[in-house]
Amino acid sequence: MPGIAINATRLNRTLDELGKFGETPDGMNRLAFSPADIASREYTIGLMRQAGLETRIDTAGNIIGRRAGADDSLPPIALGSHTDTVPLGGKYDGALGVMGAIEVIKTLDEQGHQTRHPIEAMVFTNEEGTRFHRWLIGSRAMAGLLEPEDLTAIDAEGVTLAQRMTDIGGDLSRADEAARQPGDLAAYFELHIEQGPYLYRSGTPIGVVTGITGRAVFELEISGMSNHAGTTPMNERRDALAAAAKLVVQIQKMAAEDEICRVATTGALDIQPNAVNVIPGRATVGVEFRDLDMAALDTAERELTRLARQAEQQDGVQIAINRHRFTDSVPIAPTMQEWVAEAAQRAGFDSERVPSGAGHDAQAIAAIAPMAMLFVPSVGGISHAIEEYSTPEACANGTQTLLELLLLADQRL
Amino acid sequence: MPGIAINATRLNRTLDELGKFGETPDGMNRLAFSPADIASREYTIGLMRQAGLETRIDTAGNIIGRRAGADDSLPPIALGSHTDTVPLGGKYDGALGVMGAIEVIKTLDEQGHQTRHPIEAMVFTNEEGTRFHRWLIGSRAMAGLLEPEDLTAIDAEGVTLAQRMTDIGGDLSRADEAARQPGDLAAYFELHIEQGPYLYRSGTPIGVVTGITGRAVFELEISGMSNHAGTTPMNERRDALAAAAKLVVQIQKMAAEDEICRVATTGALDIQPNAVNVIPGRATVGVEFRDLDMAALDTAERELTRLARQAEQQDGVQIAINRHRFTDSVPIAPTMQEWVAEAAQRAGFDSERVPSGAGHDAQAIAAIAPMAMLFVPSVGGISHAIEEYSTPEACANGTQTLLELLLLADQRL
Repeated sequence: MPGIAINATRLNRTLDELGKFGETPDGMNRLAFSPADIASREYTIGLMRQAGLETRIDTAGNIIGRRAGADDSLPPIALGSHTDTVPLGGKYDGALGVMGAIEVIKTLDEQGHQTRHPIEAMVFTNEEGTRFHRWLIGSRAMAGLLEPEDLTAIDAEGVTLAQRMTDIGGDLSRADEAARQPGDLAAYFELHIEQGPYLYRSGTPIGVVTGITGRAVFELEISGMSNHAGTTPMNERRDALAAAAKLVVQIQKMAAEDEICRVATTGALDIQPNAVNVIPGRATVGVEFRDLDMAALDTAERELTRLARQAEQQDGVQIAINRHRFTDSVPIAPTMQEWVAEAAQRAGFDSERVPSGAGHDAQAIAAIAPMAMLFVPSVGGISHAIEEYSTPEACANGTQTLLELLLLADQRL
Repeated sequence: MPGIAINATRLNRTLDELGKFGETPDGMNRLAFSPADIASREYTIGLMRQAGLETRIDTAGNIIGRRAGADDSLPPIALGSHTDTVPLGGKYDGALGVMGAIEVIKTLDEQGHQTRHPIEAMVFTNEEGTRFHRWLIGSRAMAGLLEPEDLTAIDAEGVTLAQRMTDIGGDLSRADEAARQPGDLAAYFELHIEQGPYLYRSGTPIGVVTGITGRAVFELEISGMSNHAGTTPMNERRDALAAAAKLVVQIQKMAAEDEICRVATTGALDIQPNAVNVIPGRATVGVEFRDLDMAALDTAERELTRLARQAEQQDGVQIAINRHRFTDSVPIAPTMQEWVAEAAQRAGFDSERVPSGAGHDAQAIAAIAPMAMLFVPSVGGISHAIEEYSTPEACANGTQTLLELLLLADQRL
């Protein structure tokens, strides 16, 4: 049994209250910088203050709540995640890490427990990146990893990221002031829902994250020939969708059967002119590969290229392969993994090692600080959808483990 | 050599002039009822009057130009087609049949040749049906084949067909007055570009159309489960696009390899949420089968149903099959085909029998009158695209044959 117990009821009440901001009948709509996001940030700042934290917003819009340590000259241990959601997303993705961090600190505050290190609770700006198609904005700014494209980004409504940033109290022109250097943080810990099925299937309360997946994104632009569907014989067609459909099947097989990489997804597909009586002349296919092993992504890219060249030969189309994004995988140090497992044990829970198939703010912060992540089970493995759910017990278990991890790290760092 | 020769230069000049209405760098944009369509109708009425025709617009918006016959109590022989285009369509589809009909009559007028039967040149309203998704509006009205859905149709801009009809001088509330009875027309002849590759490949100047294809249109609604592309293992996915892609490949194979029907096309496909990092939860696929043999379309429908049920089993999705449209094929009488072949011979051209893979106004008028169609080659078999092209010579050959067909029918009917 742990020496200090978090308040499970209070934790889940704050999760429910946060879940009112942007709630719709079809899921959570709390896009970064939206009115719902801004209102939820105010709510979160209020919770931080109730937990005795001194709050500020850095130039990247990150909310940072600080609790002094016994030795305030030590670098702080940071706990955090994000509160923005994808369109029609779930109530737990990101939210648990933030509400859990605040609950941990509120508990310490109530118990009068003084840590050696200062503690900082962090809410990172625009993790999901639905707006601007630029993700991890806040955590990358903190890690000094913003790119020139971030600074000039414009969203689908024609509004610049710079303008959006002022709406939440940031200042993109001074984003470099949000950057912290290696050594500035003693460690960063992020509690998150798994968003996959492994823990739920195995019934294990705590997942010790082994690393965050690498990701390669491509767009295939397939050019065939638009023509009349009634008069063009089958053997004279240059049907862009016919080529795209074969590629979709082959790309999925790369992961499902050939095990070239862990997952392969074709989530986006558009065709032109998209009329039932016209042979499609153009198709674009969005392709994503993920694996912890970057070599697997290189192999997947080579195979994708081979399949596209083969389709050009067989289907009379041209295919351009646009390489959109290549995100390196981020391994988590074995020592950090052991600490998470030990913290789970101290809290009284079984744990198992799991990879993170999703990206997280932790992968950016890993560039400047020792980092660990812990997962709790997602019912049915569902995420980014209204069905996303983790039980109140699972959320409390994760938060209790986060507290144990903080106390353990505070002693050893 | 024919006794009366059409003016090839004038014919092709009128085709070029008509092609200025709605011309864009990407193709013809002369949707029915658009300003370009209305302007082109005025141009066409002017040509009819220059050819000595008495013009009127019936309540379905069809333009009818009449030339008296020696025996004006005889029913008229009608020549016609349409002047509307699909979006980004070509300059010859429909236009050749109308400009050819007017050139034939202008030639007779110049030569002072009096036919026994009256002659009517016809321009049918909204053949393509891009607007309202209701096609052959004018020719179906003339054949008494309008359906209740036609009378209440509303286009994508929210404007009723009734309103659009007044824009071109029609009156949908009295559309039944446009209907003509069996016997009212002695015959109907339509000259058209082939829109397919057979005549172009074989180098045959005139195609004797054997019949107009039947057509079956379906929409597949595929429901799977949207989920996170990074965290959902391949074997737990219910990917609607994965199922759709396999069906697209299988449906095309039905025509291309199994020869269940002449052509099978999947021209429309939409997926949701259509984001590269989300597994598609829903997909809709537009499917079209065409064949002269309606039994082949029944077989194709059964096979489509079998494939959809198989996909439900294999891919964990649900599939609803919506039966959108079933258009009967229209055979052309052997006698009419022989007349076209004989007319081509009189004009000095080889001909061959070809099916029509596209639909035409002629298939509606066939319900009330003996009908024949003749085709000229489409370069490369391309249609409904800016590349649609038939040579000036091909257009003249077809028009000369149309004249011979008219004279031959005038003697024999």
